[in-house]
Parts: sequence; C-alpha cells; structure tokens
Amino acid sequence: MYRTHNCGELRAENIGQKVTLSAWVQTIRDKGNITWIDLRDRYGITQVVAEHGVVSDAVIADIKKLGREFVVQIEGEIIERHSKNPEMLTGDIELKAEKITLLNASKTPPFTIEDETDGGEEIRAKYRYLDLRRNPVKEKLQLRHKVSLETRKYLDTVDFMEVETPYLIKSTPEGARDFVVPSRMNPGEFYALPQSPQTFKQLLMVSGYDRYYQIVKCFRDEDLRADRQPEFTQIDCEMAFVEQEDVLNTFEGLIKHLFETCRDHKFEGNFPRMTYAEALEKYGSDKPDIRFGMEFCNMTDIVKGQGFGIFDEAETVLAINAEQCAVYTRKQIDKVTDWVKRPQVGAKGMIYMRVNEDGTFKSSVDKFYDQTQLAKWAEATNAKPGDLILLLSGDDLKVRSQMNDLRLHMGDELGLRNPNVFAPLWVLDFPLLEWDEDTARYHAMHHPFTSPKPEDMHLIDTEPGKVRANAYDLAMNGVELGGGSIRIHNKELQARMFELLGFSDEEAKAQFGFLMNAFEYGAPPHGGLAFGFDRLVATMGGSDSIRDYIAFPKNNSGRDVMIDSPAPLAADQLNELSLDVKKTEKPA
Amino acid sequence: MYRTHNCGELRAENIGQKVTLSAWVQTIRDKGNITWIDLRDRYGITQVVAEHGVVSDAVIADIKKLGREFVVQIEGEIIERHSKNPEMLTGDIELKAEKITLLNASKTPPFTIEDETDGGEEIRAKYRYLDLRRNPVKEKLQLRHKVSLETRKYLDTVDFMEVETPYLIKSTPEGARDFVVPSRMNPGEFYALPQSPQTFKQLLMVSGYDRYYQIVKCFRDEDLRADRQPEFTQIDCEMAFVEQEDVLNTFEGLIKHLFETCRDHKFEGNFPRMTYAEALEKYGSDKPDIRFGMEFCNMTDIVKGQGFGIFDEAETVLAINAEQCAVYTRKQIDKVTDWVKRPQVGAKGMIYMRVNEDGTFKSSVDKFYDQTQLAKWAEATNAKPGDLILLLSGDDLKVRSQMNDLRLHMGDELGLRNPNVFAPLWVLDFPLLEWDEDTARYHAMHHPFTSPKPEDMHLIDTEPGKVRANAYDLAMNGVELGGGSIRIHNKELQARMFELLGFSDEEAKAQFGFLMNAFEYGAPPHGGLAFGFDRLVATMGGSDSIRDYIAFPKNNSGRDVMIDSPAPLAADQLNELSLDVKKTEKPA
Repeated sequence: MYRTHNCGELRAENIGQKVTLSAWVQTIRDKGNITWIDLRDRYGITQVVAEHGVVSDAVIADIKKLGREFVVQIEGEIIERHSKNPEMLTGDIELKAEKITLLNASKTPPFTIEDETDGGEEIRAKYRYLDLRRNPVKEKLQLRHKVSLETRKYLDTVDFMEVETPYLIKSTPEGARDFVVPSRMNPGEFYALPQSPQTFKQLLMVSGYDRYYQIVKCFRDEDLRADRQPEFTQIDCEMAFVEQEDVLNTFEGLIKHLFETCRDHKFEGNFPRMTYAEALEKYGSDKPDIRFGMEFCNMTDIVKGQGFGIFDEAETVLAINAEQCAVYTRKQIDKVTDWVKRPQVGAKGMIYMRVNEDGTFKSSVDKFYDQTQLAKWAEATNAKPGDLILLLSGDDLKVRSQMNDLRLHMGDELGLRNPNVFAPLWVLDFPLLEWDEDTARYHAMHHPFTSPKPEDMHLIDTEPGKVRANAYDLAMNGVELGGGSIRIHNKELQARMFELLGFSDEEAKAQFGFLMNAFEYGAPPHGGLAFGFDRLVATMGGSDSIRDYIAFPKNNSGRDVMIDSPAPLAADQLNELSLDVKKTEKPA
Repeated sequence: MYRTHNCGELRAENIGQKVTLSAWVQTIRDKGNITWIDLRDRYGITQVVAEHGVVSDAVIADIKKLGREFVVQIEGEIIERHSKNPEMLTGDIELKAEKITLLNASKTPPFTIEDETDGGEEIRAKYRYLDLRRNPVKEKLQLRHKVSLETRKYLDTVDFMEVETPYLIKSTPEGARDFVVPSRMNPGEFYALPQSPQTFKQLLMVSGYDRYYQIVKCFRDEDLRADRQPEFTQIDCEMAFVEQEDVLNTFEGLIKHLFETCRDHKFEGNFPRMTYAEALEKYGSDKPDIRFGMEFCNMTDIVKGQGFGIFDEAETVLAINAEQCAVYTRKQIDKVTDWVKRPQVGAKGMIYMRVNEDGTFKSSVDKFYDQTQLAKWAEATNAKPGDLILLLSGDDLKVRSQMNDLRLHMGDELGLRNPNVFAPLWVLDFPLLEWDEDTARYHAMHHPFTSPKPEDMHLIDTEPGKVRANAYDLAMNGVELGGGSIRIHNKELQARMFELLGFSDEEAKAQFGFLMNAFEYGAPPHGGLAFGFDRLVATMGGSDSIRDYIAFPKNNSGRDVMIDSPAPLAADQLNELSLDVKKTEKPA
C-alpha cells in the first residue's frame, strides 16, 4: 500500500498515529539541524519534519537526495507542530519522518510549480502536464468536474435522460465549417463531426423522449479567435410539450442549482428579462453586462443642426454617462479615445463633456455647442456635477457595437465588473433571420429549426427580416452562457423556412430529409437550449478565458503544442483513405 | 401549458381531478357507443374514454379524425375505470375526454410501434426515430442513462474527478487504425480521433490528479464485425499510488454498485479470480463464461496410441462433458458436428462418446477404442451414466478456441446461459507480449504502457514472450466488460518496452515523446482500467448485442442509414482542406 492518508486530511486528532504518505516534494527548507519538507498531492500539503539526531541518519541521507517535484513515500508519526499554521488545514500537525522511499526522481521543472509561476504561456502549454499541478489550474478543473456532476444530478431530478448522440455524422454546408472524417470503408465519402447534436435531439423528441440532455463535445472548423477552441463542450437539452416559459423556468432552475452547489451563491428572485430590441437599444449588445448601468442615451436628435459635421452626418449619436469621472484628466480621456480608435473597436473618434462641480459644462466641441446646448446633453444623460459624458457617432449598427465596447471598457476601468458578482439576464425575441450582404440572402439567426413567433407570421412573406423568433439567450456578465428556441415541428413550416434560407427542395431534402420525414410521423411541439459548458464554468469561476478551464486546450492555430498535433500522415494511411494531399501554402 | 400530468402517473387518488395530457395515440378501440384511446408517452399509457351521448359531439367528431401515432392534447376528468387493469400502473383510472386538440398528425408508420413489432432490421434502422418509441428500445436507453449516472455518482463518492480529454489528437500507427481529421488551418496535416484517452489519462496522473475518470467516446477504424461499432463509449479510469489490488477492489465496488442500483442485483462476496493461463487451460478463452461448468479435459495422453490417426497426429485433444446429454440422438449430434465445422468455428470434425444408463459406452470411434479405453475417457471427464462427452483435436491454440465455441454453444443449447444470472470473473496475469507472425515482431497484448511483473523481469531479454504483465480483465458471462493494467512509470523501462515492440528511438520519440518527457518530472506509480460502456450496459440488460443499447448505431459497413452518412463532400470543401479524392473501387 502506497499511502494510508492523503496530504490534505491529517489533523490534530491524528497526533500519535503512524501514517504513510506518497506525494510530491513541494519545497525543502533547512534551519539549523532541522529539515522540513512540504509534501503536496491533489488534496493539500502536509509538512514533514526531520531533526538531525532525532531521526535516523538514513532518513537524513535520503532527504539530501531529494529535490523539487520528486515523488516520495514517507512513513512516520504524526506529531504536534511547534509553530502552528492556521492558514493550512493540516497546519496543526507535522509528520516526523521515519522512513523515506524514493518513488521517482524529477528533473528541475521548466517553470516553478507555484500559484504564481515564472513560466510564460508557451512553455506552460508545452508542459501542460506540469502546469496542471499548479493549484489555480487544478481548482478550475475541479470546479468543472463539480459543475458537470451537479448538472447531471439536477437534470436527473427533473426527469431528463442523458442520451448519447453520434460523433460521426453528416456534413451540412449551413453554419460554420464542419470538421470532416474520411471513411476508409466508403472511399471518397466523409463523415462530419457535429457542430451540435441539434437534429438528433429533435429526432429524440419525435421519438417521445420528452426531456433529453447530454454534456457533449462539439466541433467547429472556424478561424480561431482569442477565446475559441475547435472542440468545445455543450450542455445540450431539449424538451417536448413545452412553451418558451417552461424552458426558461427549467434552466433558470439549473443555473440557480449550479451556483448554489458549486459557488455557494444564491440568486434572489427570478432572473431579469429583456427583449433583443431593448438590449440593442440600451447596451448595443445581445448579451449585455448588467452588473452596472451606463445605459446608452440616443443623442441623435439633440446634437444635430449645430454645425458639427461629424454629428450632422452620422446616422446615430450615442452617449454614456461615466458617473463621477469628470476628474479624468485630458491625458486619461485621450487614452480612452485611443482605445476606441483601435482596429478591434474601430471608432473614428470620441467626443466628451465634463459636468463641472459648479454645474457648468466643458466639452471637446465647445466651438459648436454652448452651455445651453450642453445642458440638454446633461438632461438627456441624467448627468450630475462630477460626471463625464462620452459620445460616439456613425452608422447605427456600428456605433452601437463600438459603444458596447466602450461601455465595457469603462466598466473595467471603473471596477464595475466584479467577477464575483453574477448578473444573469434572459434576452428574448431574437429576430428569426439576418440578412447576409456577402451571399445576398437571409441566414437563420439561431438555426433553421427555430420557430417564428405566431404573431409575426403575417410578415413572413413581405418583411421576413422583421419576423421575431421564439428564441432566447441566457447572458451573464456580458457573456452568452447559452441559448435556444422553440422549434418548428410542422413539416410545411420547416419547408417554408428552408425556402426562405435559399435552399432548393433538393438541397433541403439531401441534408435534412430525415428530419422532415420524421415530422410526418407525429412530431410533438418541442424546444430546448444549449449552454456553452466551457464558458459557463469560466464565468462561474470568475474568468474571461475558457482555455484555463480546459485540461488540454489548443492554441490559436488549432494546434496542441504538447503532443504536436495535427501532423502529416504516413503515405500508406493516405492511400488507405483514397486521399491525396495537394501541395499548398499555409494560409497567412 | 401542454399538460398537467404525464401518462404514467395518474392513480385512483386522482379520481375527480381535471387534467390535461399531451401524448401519442397508441390505439383506438370502439365497442358499442364507447371509444377508448390508449395515450402513450415516455412514462406510460393512460386510457381515455369517450361515450357517445356522455361527451360532446365535438369530442366524438375529433376522435374520428385521429389515427395511430397522432399527437393530441386531451383535457378531461379522471374517473374510476369499470374494468380495472392490474397489469397497468394507471389501470385503476381513465380520462373522460372533454376536449381534444390535435397537435400533429401522423402518416401510418412503416412498422407497428409495439413491443413485438412487424418491422425488419433494415426498415427499423432507417426509421430509427420511430423504433426508439418502442418500449423495449426505450427501456434499454433508460438503463444506459441510469448506469451512466450511477457510475458518476459512485466514482464521485470515492474521489474520482471527471476530466475531459481532447478528441482531436495525434495519429499513432500502433494498434487499430485511427479515424483522421484533416486540418484546414494546417494544410496537409491531420488530427486523429482517440482510440482511447490512454496517454492523456497517464499525463493526468503525472499532473497529480490521482483519481481520474471519464465516460468518453472512442473511435476505431476497423473492419466491422457483427457487434462492433466505429464509435463506442468507455468508462475510462486511472489511479495513482496504487497496486493491482487497489484497482481491482475499487472497480469491483463500482460494478457491485451498478448492479445494485440499476438491476436490483446483489453479488455475494468477492468476485472470483483466475489467471489467464488457467482460463485458457480450462475454458480456451480469456473471458470464460463461468455461469456453467463443462470445463475442458485434456485427453491428449489418454487417447493417443490406439491407431486413430486424427488423434495420434493432433497436438492436443480436448473433451467436455455435456451432462445428461446421452439422450441426444444421432441426428442431434450430427447437427452439433455440422455446427463446429462452420467456417466461423473451423473444426474438422467432432468425436463423441455416450455413457449409457447401464454404464457401458458408445463412441463414434468404437473401431479404435474398446470399453476399457473408453472407461478411461469417462474417468478423466468425470462422466456419469447419461452424460455425453464431446472431443475436438488439432493444434493446441486452435482447438482451444474451437472447444470454447463448442462449450458456449452447448451452454446455449442446454439453457445454461441465463441472461439474468451474472457471473463476474477477474482474469489476471495476462502475457505482456504476443508474437505476430505477419510482422515477425512482438505486439503489446494490452498496450505499450503496461508494466511487466517484477518477478518475470529476468526473462525480458531472453524469453520476452514468457513475461507476464500486471494486466487484468473483468469478464462476465463470456464477455469482456473491461480491462486494464498497472502502467510503466519509469522512463528507461518505457524506452525498453518500445524497443521490444520494434520502435526505433526516433519513432518512439515522435509518437510518445511527450509521455516519455513527462516521466522525467516525477511520475507517480499508477494504473487503471477501462470498461466498454456499451457492452457493460448490454450485459446488465441481459443482451448480447451492443447495437440495441446505442440510440443511433451504425450498420456493419459503418453507415448511418437514417441520415445517409458518410457522404461525398462538395468540391470546394475538399479544396479548402487541400485534398483530392483518388478514384478507387469500393473494397469487396
């Protein structure tokens, strides 16, 4: 037996016991004729002590051979610690070493295995198995484990059944690019890896499975942005015989359960709700961070006609009120202006107005606007002495997106985005379709199976872009945790939808024939939702980055630098798959 | 709200309540002026009644429009049933229909949605979403859900942490063929889908995660046999600081928990154990079905030298005793002989001996063996009057395999393989290596990371084929439920192992360099095990076929006939992936 206890469980009541620990050497410290070793495992740290003259010479000799990250087995007696450490759960005791067995040596790690490491991102990615030893990383994966288990427990109590859907499915040109898998047994043919189990979960509703869920890997071959991974995990759910209200209530229950059990956080009352239109109007985002106010104020009508060309020519002028920021210096304001002009935000400039303590105004466009004019700005933005008003202008859609970026940036600057405050928000009534300029046709905003709102059906032939969908997202802290919709369960409506999306009959049949057929055999009304599991856990952990919450993530080129993948195939493997690789340049 | 209750929960205490059900029409029966509808959902069946003159004419008219598998919403009052049905949980009540709303119509299904359906395998595969409505299929998937949840609950109580390992990994030529995934962002390069998370779970042990598990999809591009699927599910587990005994005890605990919670079956005492050598000797199989005896008797020395050429030339002659089967007629025995001669078994012939009630013997080789000789057969096989002895002969390995097939066949014939009896067996001490004639080198019997037994290490240079491994399988009812090993955690031994398997230094480094590097930074002793989840659930369900326990299985050509996959890719998809498809014939 390698150990009687782990390094996190020994307490004062164990004093006098003979125990055996097996674990890693975190540190070795000498002081006078005493040596201490911090022994570390998944469960904690236990201090080992060896006093020259008290323990045998063999033990002293064995200790001399040890170094950081060595794996050792240490037998001995639990004794009371001289200077107790109330910060540590095991801080009342230490292990008096009586026998030391080296289980495995270690080279010096390429970075320190400490909460604050000296290792950069690249080296930690290459030696991910060592980075995973660090407490902050381990705690993130433990949270992930807990959230996953509590999700299953909760959904089981409300009659959801986990059903595994296939990974080797069929490629569909709709949406993001599929990863594909050549079939050796069917030369020239390919499977695709699922972007989501969407059609399968709808088939399970047709099958009468009523309440389905799955925590499942999904795959998207997109050009990777900072916080995207080619493979990611979803909590995928679907329910039959439900309306939108049933779905929202069910999954609000799940999220509350997860925060209570995994974060010891209780939400009061129901999650607030907002329509998509209102979210865009107030926050320029379909996933607003409502931990703070700073709502948009539409200034277009107020600012026009005073000879300031930029505003006069703009489709929309928006303002936000950064309360009590009039103290910002010119230099600080210039820094904010530079920030909004970065290519990632793309604003051409920023106008500001300070409300001085004496109630007068100072703006960057005093040439065009006098104090009376500026008083109207203050009134519109509800500005008080000491406040700072920031304005952006331009095309409506663009300026909303830029102002959203600016608002979040100011929220960060002013410390209004505390990662331990959680502000959920249901965003409702998404548009059914969005117009795509490139292909000059409509795309499904959510996906082609989302149902239109019955009250908007009269617009479907004349103004399809104005039709709202029975679609909803759960946002939290400016992040989309998940989203879903009530689906179409009627074959004719589904066919009409494919038509709106520019599918020919043949295309629709070739790709989704099985689903449309299934709708002919008693499909129940149904709807569902999927949470981005990586993002949910990251948000619960108070982090922006999903990568930290994935045990073995890929980098921004989709590479796993630890195992060095992807990699070329051997010629005979390609032959077996009936494939040739074309000589091409790597895309820039 | 679509429903107040489901179809499985209404009881006598609900009599008098107004309820709403939404579900499928299972059957409609008329008798005189009364119509009954059996309404079915996932939870059960509730009988609906409509008596002409009692309910409104509208209800009667609506019912006339219904057919099998229509989806309806029915409102009404729960009343006491005239003729109660004690077989049904809802058999005391019925729903007096007051309002019927058609939610969706159904074409006549291509086969009946009944426990015993009239649909053949192919049509049910194509309309899998309808087959899934049938009770026997639904119960299998419900069992699967339950086993999966209880696995997680149990492993959580003993400190296992679920960690998701990546699906897009690196191809390795070892073992079965990988499915590969071309990388668009890295032209000419490929990911592979994991055959198992083996190396990742070992890295997690190096990371100190101590007790890891995952219920995870794995992929093997093998030529499919009857009960193989290209994608399958594993319960994958690994532990650090453990010896073989710790692993066996932990997972014996898991299996016991699963049978208790999901099958209401309690195992008495510990699971029996047997070495690989003994299993081959007694049963000719490394996964013997020990629900019944009929152990092999080695007759080689007893039967030789009597002038019967077939036995005299054979390396090995084996017998089994089919107790009380002397009543088998010549015709019945001929049928068994034909069975062993099938190509799948491959025996050239079968010899038999009956022990008559009077203690005399009758064999198919009386020309060569007199009663005294046959008495020796009877003694060796412990045959009693009424028993039937069956003998096969040939090369040792072949005849053991053939006799295993014959023994299982006789077990089936004699009803000794009750699917509701569960006989677990740990098979221990597997060989480390097996010789492969084709490539003229050793292959790892389990995998290249399995540790040799220390007491056999002296043979590793001289007789590597005789070295036993710290490897174990859990067999049940003639099926391998899972297997694992204590791994190598020492870099030098791992390098020696790759050498034995014929890897050059470069090959080993290219493929497993990251693991061998990891072993330099304090790798703990570790070991683990993986269960075939599909097979575990099928065995728990008393079935031989894993396909029934998979929601959307593939056929023997690896095709999903419901969605018609795999399929050709569009030319621009291939271009984006820098791939050409070579014109080839489909393999035969």
